[in-house]
Amino acid sequence: GAPMGPGLKKKNIPQPSNPLKSFNWAKLAENKLEGTVWTDLDDIRVFKILDLEDIEKTFSAYQRQQDFFMTNNSKQKETEDDSLSSKKVKELSVIDGRRAQNCNILLSRLKLSNDEIKRAILTMDEQEDLPKDMLEQLLKFVPEKSDVDLLEEHKQELSRMAKADRFLYEMSRISHYQQRLQSLYFKKKFAERIAEIKPKVEALAKASKEVLHSRNLKQLLEVVLAFGNYMNKGQRGNAYGFKVSSLNKIADTKSSIDKNITLLHYLITILEKKYPKVMLFQEDLQNVPEAAKVNMTELEKDINNLRSGLKNVESELEYQKNRPQESGDKFVSVVSQFITVASFSFSDVEDSLQDAKELFAKVVKHFGEDSARMQPDEFFGIFDQFLQSFAEAKQENENIRRRKEEEERRARMEAQLKEQRERERKARKAEEDGEFDD
Amino acid sequence: GAPMGPGLKKKNIPQPSNPLKSFNWAKLAENKLEGTVWTDLDDIRVFKILDLEDIEKTFSAYQRQQDFFMTNNSKQKETEDDSLSSKKVKELSVIDGRRAQNCNILLSRLKLSNDEIKRAILTMDEQEDLPKDMLEQLLKFVPEKSDVDLLEEHKQELSRMAKADRFLYEMSRISHYQQRLQSLYFKKKFAERIAEIKPKVEALAKASKEVLHSRNLKQLLEVVLAFGNYMNKGQRGNAYGFKVSSLNKIADTKSSIDKNITLLHYLITILEKKYPKVMLFQEDLQNVPEAAKVNMTELEKDINNLRSGLKNVESELEYQKNRPQESGDKFVSVVSQFITVASFSFSDVEDSLQDAKELFAKVVKHFGEDSARMQPDEFFGIFDQFLQSFAEAKQENENIRRRKEEEERRARMEAQLKEQRERERKARKAEEDGEFDD
Repeated sequence: GAPMGPGLKKKNIPQPSNPLKSFNWAKLAENKLEGTVWTDLDDIRVFKILDLEDIEKTFSAYQRQQDFFMTNNSKQKETEDDSLSSKKVKELSVIDGRRAQNCNILLSRLKLSNDEIKRAILTMDEQEDLPKDMLEQLLKFVPEKSDVDLLEEHKQELSRMAKADRFLYEMSRISHYQQRLQSLYFKKKFAERIAEIKPKVEALAKASKEVLHSRNLKQLLEVVLAFGNYMNKGQRGNAYGFKVSSLNKIADTKSSIDKNITLLHYLITILEKKYPKVMLFQEDLQNVPEAAKVNMTELEKDINNLRSGLKNVESELEYQKNRPQESGDKFVSVVSQFITVASFSFSDVEDSLQDAKELFAKVVKHFGEDSARMQPDEFFGIFDQFLQSFAEAKQENENIRRRKEEEERRARMEAQLKEQRERERKARKAEEDGEFDD
Repeated sequence: GAPMGPGLKKKNIPQPSNPLKSFNWAKLAENKLEGTVWTDLDDIRVFKILDLEDIEKTFSAYQRQQDFFMTNNSKQKETEDDSLSSKKVKELSVIDGRRAQNCNILLSRLKLSNDEIKRAILTMDEQEDLPKDMLEQLLKFVPEKSDVDLLEEHKQELSRMAKADRFLYEMSRISHYQQRLQSLYFKKKFAERIAEIKPKVEALAKASKEVLHSRNLKQLLEVVLAFGNYMNKGQRGNAYGFKVSSLNKIADTKSSIDKNITLLHYLITILEKKYPKVMLFQEDLQNVPEAAKVNMTELEKDINNLRSGLKNVESELEYQKNRPQESGDKFVSVVSQFITVASFSFSDVEDSLQDAKELFAKVVKHFGEDSARMQPDEFFGIFDQFLQSFAEAKQENENIRRRKEEEERRARMEAQLKEQRERERKARKAEEDGEFDD
C-alpha cells in the first residue's frame, strides 16, 4: 500500500469475496487532504449501513455472457433467465464496459486470433495483416498499468476471461508491446506523411521563385504605382512603393461614370492595350495558389512530429538490439533497414524545407515586407486573391465588350432594315405614281 | 511632404486638374525601400504611356448624382443620358464608394439632419434621439485624418458635396467628436453592462457557498467514497478522497446483472432507502448551473473594459473642463453627474467580484483541488453535469419501478382472471354433473 500520511489512520475496508467491477475514479493525493472536507468524511460509517452482499452481486467482475434478450425485461423472460443462470458459463470481465465493447468491435473487424495478432506484431507485420487504420485503433487499446495489475491477479482464470480481457492480457505479455505497435504504425504511415509534406515544400520554393523573377509582375507593379500616385494626394500620394496587400484594394475604387466598373477593370483594359505582355503574369505565378495554402506552423509541426517519431523508433531499435530476441521476433532486422531508408528520405525533405524557407524570406524582403511576421499563407494568399480578382474582372470586361458588340450589330441591322423598308416603300410609291402616270 | 531618403530623387508626378477618387493603398515606408524591387521601378516611365485625361474622366471625385437607370445600359438610354449629363448637378464625392454608401444608409435610418445630430452630440443626447445601435454605427463613420484632409481642401464647395461627404465634414468640425461619441455610447451602455456582469458574480458567490456548506453533498461524497473503496483494489483503492471530476465517472460502471443499470442508478436507490435526506442535495445547489456558465477570463475582461472605459470618459471630462464651452455644450455637466453614479456602481461590482473570487478559492481548496488551475466553469461544470446525470438516472429508476409495478399488477390481474375462469369452469362442470345426477 501507499505510505500513510501523518495523522491518517489505516482504514479497515471490508473486502468482497470475489473481484468487483472497478469505479474509475481519480484518487486525491494524501498530501492534499489537510484542511479539506475529506478529513471530515469517514466511509467506515457507511459500510455499516450498506448491503455489501447486494453490491457484490450487482457489480461482480464475473459476468454472465451478454444475454441480449435480457434487455426486454418481461416477467416471463426474467424468470426463465433466473432458472438458467446457474447453468450458464460465467465470464471474468474486469475491464470497463464501454471500453470492452469497443475493443470487441475492433477484434471482430480484425478477424485475427490473439496469437495471430501477436505474431503480426513480432514480425513487424510481414504478411500485411494489420491495415493502418486497425493499427491506429489497436493503439487505443494498449493495456494500462491498472488493467494489467487487475488481469495479472486473475491470470489463473484465463479460460474464463471475456474476449477483451483476454486480448489485453495476452498483449500485455509482449515485451514493449506499445513501443512495437507505435514503431509499426510509424513505419506504415511514413511514406504517406512524406508524400503529404513534399508538395507543400515544393510549392513554397517554386512560388517564391516565380514571384521573385516574374518581369511581368514587376511591370504590373510599376503601372499600379503610377495609378496610385496620379490619383492619391497628400499623405497618401508620392509613394515609392506600396504594401502588396494594396493589390487587393484596387477593385475598391469605383469609376464615377459607371459604378459597375472598378479601377481593376480599367487597369486591365489599359494593360491589354499598352502592356499586352503583362497580361501573362498569371501564367508566371502558377504555383502561387498551392503555396497560399501552406501554413508554416503546421508544416514545421509535421516535420517535427516526423523527426521525433523517427527518433523514438531509433531508440526502440537500440533497446531491442540490446536484449535477447525471441524466435520469430523480426523487429531489429526490419526496423534497421527501415531507419536507413527513412532517415535519408527525411533529411531530403528537411533540406528542401530549409531551402524553401530561405527563398521565401528573400521574396518577402524583395517586396519590402516584414519577413519576421509575414507567413507564406498570408503572402501568397494576397497574390492568389489578386490573381482570382484579376481573372474575374478580365472575364467581366470581355462580357461587357461582347454585349456592346452585339448591341452595335443589332443596331446596325435595325438601321439596315429600316433603310431597306424605306427603299421598298419608295419603290412602291414610285410604282403607284407610275400607274397613275400611265 | 515627407523627407526624402538618401538617394531618392524627388518625383515629378503629373497633377490632375480636378480631384480624383482615391486608391486606398498602404504606402511602403521610405526606409524600407533599400534592396527591394521598388528601387527598380519608375512610375514616371508609365505616365508617358497612360492616357491621363481618360483616367481623370473615369475616376473623377466629382460624380454625377447616382443614376440607377444607368446600370441597364441599352444603347438608347446611354445616348439619352449623355445628352442630359451636362445639365445634371455634379456632386463632389471623395469618400470611397462602399463606405459612402453604408454611411448614407445609416443617415437615412437616423432621419436627422447634420445639425440635429450635432446638437444631440453636444447635449449628450438629452432628447434621446440616438439609440444605442445607431451610436455604435456612428462610431464606424468617424472621419479619418485622410478624409478630413481631403474634405478640408474642398470646403468652399460645401453645397456640392455628396451627403456622406458633407456629414463627415460637419462632424469633423465638432471638437473631440470621436471622444464625445465614445463617451455617449459608454454612458448609454453602462447600466446594461453592469446588469450583465452582476448576476454572474452573484451566481459565483452563491454557488461557492452552497457547495461549501451543503451537508447533504458532504454525506453523498462519504457514500461514494465507501463505494469506491469497496469496489476498487490495489493502487486505485484505499482512498481518503477523490477528485470531484470522479463524480461523473460513477455512471461509467455498469451492473453485471443488467447492462442498462449503472452504479449511479444503484447509488440513487441506496440513497433513497438509507440516506433519504441526501436526495435533497439537488435543492441545496440551486446556483450551480448558473455558476457553471461563468468564464472567469471573460468576466475579468468585461470588468477591465468597464474600468478603462470609465477612465477614458473621466479623462475626456478633465479635457472638456479645461476648455471654453460652446453654448449648448452640456458634456461637462452631464458627464460629471454620470461619473459620480457610475464610479459608485462599478466599485460595488468590483468588490463583489473580489469577495466571490475569495469564496471560490476557498471552496476549491475545501475539496483538495488546485485553486490555481481550477476555473469556475470547470469546477461548477462538474457539479452541474453530475446534477443533470443524477436527475436523469433518478427519473429512469422511477420509470423502471413504475413499469415493474404495472407488470406485476397485470400479472396479478391475469392470475385472478385465470382463477375466475377456473372457478366458472368448475361451477359449470358441477352443474353438468348435477344434471346427470338429477
